[in-house]
Amino acid sequence: MTSGIRVDGKRLWDSVMAMSEIGATANGGSHRLTLSDEDKVARDLFSRWCADADLALTVDEMGDMFALRAGAEAGRAPVGMGSHLDTQPYGGRFDGVFGVLAGLEVIRTLNDHGVTTAAPLEIVNWTNEEGARFAPSMLASGVYGGIFDLDWAQSRKAVDSGATLIDELKRIGYHGEGSVRDHEFSAFFECHIEQGPILDSGGIAVGVVNAAQGFRWYDISLEGFASHTGSTPMAGRRNALLGLARVVQAVDDIAHERAPLARGTVGSQVEVGPGSRNVIPGIVQFTVDLRHPSADTLDAMDAALRAVCAEVAADIGLQLSLEQISDTAPVAFDEACVAAVKRACERLGISHEYITSGAGHDACYVANRVPTAMLFAPCKDGISHHESERAEPEDLEAVTNVLLHAVLDTAGVA
Amino acid sequence: MTSGIRVDGKRLWDSVMAMSEIGATANGGSHRLTLSDEDKVARDLFSRWCADADLALTVDEMGDMFALRAGAEAGRAPVGMGSHLDTQPYGGRFDGVFGVLAGLEVIRTLNDHGVTTAAPLEIVNWTNEEGARFAPSMLASGVYGGIFDLDWAQSRKAVDSGATLIDELKRIGYHGEGSVRDHEFSAFFECHIEQGPILDSGGIAVGVVNAAQGFRWYDISLEGFASHTGSTPMAGRRNALLGLARVVQAVDDIAHERAPLARGTVGSQVEVGPGSRNVIPGIVQFTVDLRHPSADTLDAMDAALRAVCAEVAADIGLQLSLEQISDTAPVAFDEACVAAVKRACERLGISHEYITSGAGHDACYVANRVPTAMLFAPCKDGISHHESERAEPEDLEAVTNVLLHAVLDTAGVA
Repeated sequence: MTSGIRVDGKRLWDSVMAMSEIGATANGGSHRLTLSDEDKVARDLFSRWCADADLALTVDEMGDMFALRAGAEAGRAPVGMGSHLDTQPYGGRFDGVFGVLAGLEVIRTLNDHGVTTAAPLEIVNWTNEEGARFAPSMLASGVYGGIFDLDWAQSRKAVDSGATLIDELKRIGYHGEGSVRDHEFSAFFECHIEQGPILDSGGIAVGVVNAAQGFRWYDISLEGFASHTGSTPMAGRRNALLGLARVVQAVDDIAHERAPLARGTVGSQVEVGPGSRNVIPGIVQFTVDLRHPSADTLDAMDAALRAVCAEVAADIGLQLSLEQISDTAPVAFDEACVAAVKRACERLGISHEYITSGAGHDACYVANRVPTAMLFAPCKDGISHHESERAEPEDLEAVTNVLLHAVLDTAGVA
Repeated sequence: MTSGIRVDGKRLWDSVMAMSEIGATANGGSHRLTLSDEDKVARDLFSRWCADADLALTVDEMGDMFALRAGAEAGRAPVGMGSHLDTQPYGGRFDGVFGVLAGLEVIRTLNDHGVTTAAPLEIVNWTNEEGARFAPSMLASGVYGGIFDLDWAQSRKAVDSGATLIDELKRIGYHGEGSVRDHEFSAFFECHIEQGPILDSGGIAVGVVNAAQGFRWYDISLEGFASHTGSTPMAGRRNALLGLARVVQAVDDIAHERAPLARGTVGSQVEVGPGSRNVIPGIVQFTVDLRHPSADTLDAMDAALRAVCAEVAADIGLQLSLEQISDTAPVAFDEACVAAVKRACERLGISHEYITSGAGHDACYVANRVPTAMLFAPCKDGISHHESERAEPEDLEAVTNVLLHAVLDTAGVA
């Protein structure tokens, strides 16, 4: 019987801390950009740990690392676990790293107990999840999921040196032979910190992620007429900033009306011109970000946004330009995988709640091809992409125990 | 009898056009910054015109130019007319220039008709009205009116070269001997384009300016919490841009509630951080400009602004910083001078309307010491501080005829 098996929380934490030392920052974070020298050191350490755990490591043409543990039944595709080892610039110690090392801890635990699963198990480190050094984010898992072309992805250029991704893969010795898309999984599980405040504020140990929001991005400008703040009467003004003000409030309302799942934000990338305190704003340029796990609701939010922008522009006498620049579909994670996670929480007596991912993750693209689910751990105050990002050892241990039992459930025991 | 005398509208227009050629821009404007080489050429031309009109030119220690025409009665202080010859960067052909050359046209007309006034007449070109090359604006008239210290004003530095005002005065040969504050006037009249749309849209020939708005400027910041647009629920957000949106609408409302004289504007100088489309705005920095001709109403608008900022900050959970950086008192122009302008309009049968100046002018500071009024000419669509600034010859002629008769009325005829 494997139901009594538990992971080693201290070993997991020590591994996370050891990894965080690579590119450690003065303020307690990690700075380990994709395919940098630090990324190479991190990959090398992960390779050694995999070898120590008797895993067979392969690397594909996008630099994705696959560490395979054989199963008892021939011909079954492995159950995957993983995330990414790269970080944001001056990022945190947990984002991505936790998901890779949770997979490693599951395998170390099975090794300790001499458990062989029916299906093979495989840990993955996806290349360039963050998108900070090479845009866009989730690049390699996007190639895997059929979102991006391989050639296009390999020719992305580093924002620092301009070197291509494939040249940087070769430089650090992680350009492998394997074809990205030939790789098969029977299921995939990604553990991650929530990067939001719901679990932390609610005192919930595990987020059972059953969906990821779709999101749509817009570039909008409103053009009015710049004139003197003193000599221009209120009545004849065509104040572009007043237009922005009304759109900001409306976008907030559009999301609140569809609580709790909807998100609507005018982002922090705003330009107001011409840039003088005694000139009425003549132009504003801004972005809008709408999110929801239902495409139908996103359609309704999109329509509401377009209507309010047109109405505001007509009311104030502004010229409206609205361009939708992206449309990322919602993800509904696999019912069986989600159920396996939930059952594991219940069996272990760990507090849990369904949660929708608001951010993008490798699992969102993997889900295009493979039955997938995610598990979230609480992170303090929801802060992520920041050196102060923090998670508690006991929380990571609890989530990894859930991962262990969801994987055993899915892979089967020999 | 002088009641039948009229100015020469063509001569006035030709002079304005000749002056506009100094620093002429490709798009029909003028670029003639304070104490630049172009300003020297403009001053030299004005000097020659004054000499041609038998005027005695003096220059004071701030570079202000005074062109005196003797009166019949000994001991009376002159009646002043004037404005400024400097322009905004790539500014218009009329702002300031019209007021100086209207004064010159009045004197040329009196010369033509051999009219001697009882009090002397004097044209003034005030230095650095625009404040574009040396901050602040209305610098020399501010010294005259007792707003600024002479030493402080003379040591202002050019934004381009860093040279002080006094060194630039010496460089172009316009650092005079006269003391700014010793100069006396019995009355002062400034003609100017409106720089707003009221006269143009109403088809009114002359604005009888009986007041200038006081204005108060504020630097405000609202600080919330920057976090992920996807993973942060709407309920817990501290969105600084939402705070700005509400303040922008409230400032607009505060002014509309006190229509038609009040003005309230969040200016076009706005910073939103941290500057990413998928990060909720964590900080906004902006300016507010409140204007009204009554200090009591300005007090009420000030109180309303402070209250709404505090309320918005508390409601959204933002940290508010509000600093008032200037408080320029309203000006009530001299009743007798305003009445002289209105009477002249009536006698000449020229359409006119009382108007409050929304912008600052040299006359606002001169009014601190001298009975003063202003006359506004329509400017197309209210556009000013721009190369497309435009006024019609017949409008400038009408306003200058009103100036002529208001000055004759005030100075008396010998």
